[in-house]
Amino acid sequence: MRNSDLALANRLADAAGEAIRPLFRGDWQAETKADHSAVTDADRAAEAAMRAIIEQVCPDDGIIGEEYGTRNEGAGRQWVLDPIDGTQSFVAGRAMFGTLIALMQDGWPVLGVIDQPIQRERWVGRIGDGTLFNGKPVKTRSCPAIEGMSVATTSPHCFDAQQSDAYLNIIANAYPKRPWPVYGGDCYNYALLASGHLDLVIETGLKVYDYAALVPVVEGAGGMMADWQGNPLDAGSDGTVLALGDPARLEDVLEAMG
Amino acid sequence: MRNSDLALANRLADAAGEAIRPLFRGDWQAETKADHSAVTDADRAAEAAMRAIIEQVCPDDGIIGEEYGTRNEGAGRQWVLDPIDGTQSFVAGRAMFGTLIALMQDGWPVLGVIDQPIQRERWVGRIGDGTLFNGKPVKTRSCPAIEGMSVATTSPHCFDAQQSDAYLNIIANAYPKRPWPVYGGDCYNYALLASGHLDLVIETGLKVYDYAALVPVVEGAGGMMADWQGNPLDAGSDGTVLALGDPARLEDVLEAMG
Repeated sequence: MRNSDLALANRLADAAGEAIRPLFRGDWQAETKADHSAVTDADRAAEAAMRAIIEQVCPDDGIIGEEYGTRNEGAGRQWVLDPIDGTQSFVAGRAMFGTLIALMQDGWPVLGVIDQPIQRERWVGRIGDGTLFNGKPVKTRSCPAIEGMSVATTSPHCFDAQQSDAYLNIIANAYPKRPWPVYGGDCYNYALLASGHLDLVIETGLKVYDYAALVPVVEGAGGMMADWQGNPLDAGSDGTVLALGDPARLEDVLEAMG
Repeated sequence: MRNSDLALANRLADAAGEAIRPLFRGDWQAETKADHSAVTDADRAAEAAMRAIIEQVCPDDGIIGEEYGTRNEGAGRQWVLDPIDGTQSFVAGRAMFGTLIALMQDGWPVLGVIDQPIQRERWVGRIGDGTLFNGKPVKTRSCPAIEGMSVATTSPHCFDAQQSDAYLNIIANAYPKRPWPVYGGDCYNYALLASGHLDLVIETGLKVYDYAALVPVVEGAGGMMADWQGNPLDAGSDGTVLALGDPARLEDVLEAMG
């Protein structure tokens, strides 16, 4: 990581927010991509704004973006961009999406930003150097047991049948009386976990631009991210994701998933 | 309805927001009620603040509150209060809960407020007199067909097996390619539907203090609320709820539910 990378990441988030804010709850039509996910002018404008800055400031760095693909594939430094993570929430007018910016070095995320431009909330994490929420340090909270854990996931439709069984095992253990997990939220749940408001986020089907920025934010705050086998996340992970506020609960969670 | 009721409803929402804002993301423990739902000091403080105002200004009016129960049962005018609808979201630090305030006359909701005190967003609806979002009129949007409808529900755990089948039939019709409904949100989804950002909200298990305020907000904006048999909602409804931005789709939705 360079000393200037933090300032650059903040500049990228600022530029994305400037592109997104005028279009929030605006008068446009969402379009459908080949994978049947939604995209809007805001996604494209925000990613274009960020790419233009990277190409000007660090032309040798790589870029992996959700909307405009890969540039300088194979570069040791890769900026990983998801202009709007949670496009369905954005389209529904909910200020619970986020702009995700990660710097990966040799495939490992070392710097991550989760930015909510409407509520003007920004989480910035650096591996080995802590996580800041709007400039102030945040920490995950401890969690003594799987019973009573506060669990979040964006949508039950992300799970196949076997994954759904594993997920429901977690819910049964966390909420033995009545299932109250938190749904919706996309990247925002990971940010709230970093700030100590949630204990576990469990998802599947995430692409590298969905999870790369989350790792430094969560781990910089004292939490842990892993795939569903407990392995750390890098550029080649399979898209299954666990985020734990308290790393001491990893074995319990993996065991409960069966 | 009295001319002063609108000002009183706004005063109640102001008081609830004053009680809630200092406790958002605060250092307290959520407690569990007999029905295994969560409650916090914020729920209690907000409802107490609203009740104190009603008891002073309109001592003969009835009150039905989630946390402190019923006062003047049988009064023709009933204030129906849910200080924090979406306590799970509030506990997780998400600004997507709402304070719900309704005035029911002879069991029918005629005035409703959905207030989001962190984002300082307020929807106020009066039957026959339109819905305002932060003082400006809002309208639901038209929806030409069930395919392509934007659907929201708070949690799949609210449905029993038969209700789940009905819900999944709606999802299959609305999203034939890939299921992208919006999860989480509680009352906030109904507010976004009133503002024209969602087409359908479908839920079950709602109590009168969960749905009474939604009816004037949604219907004042041109939408429609009904139970799962298509009947209008009053104090005695069974807790199944549909909100449609475009009332012309009611028959399609009921048919698709099977």
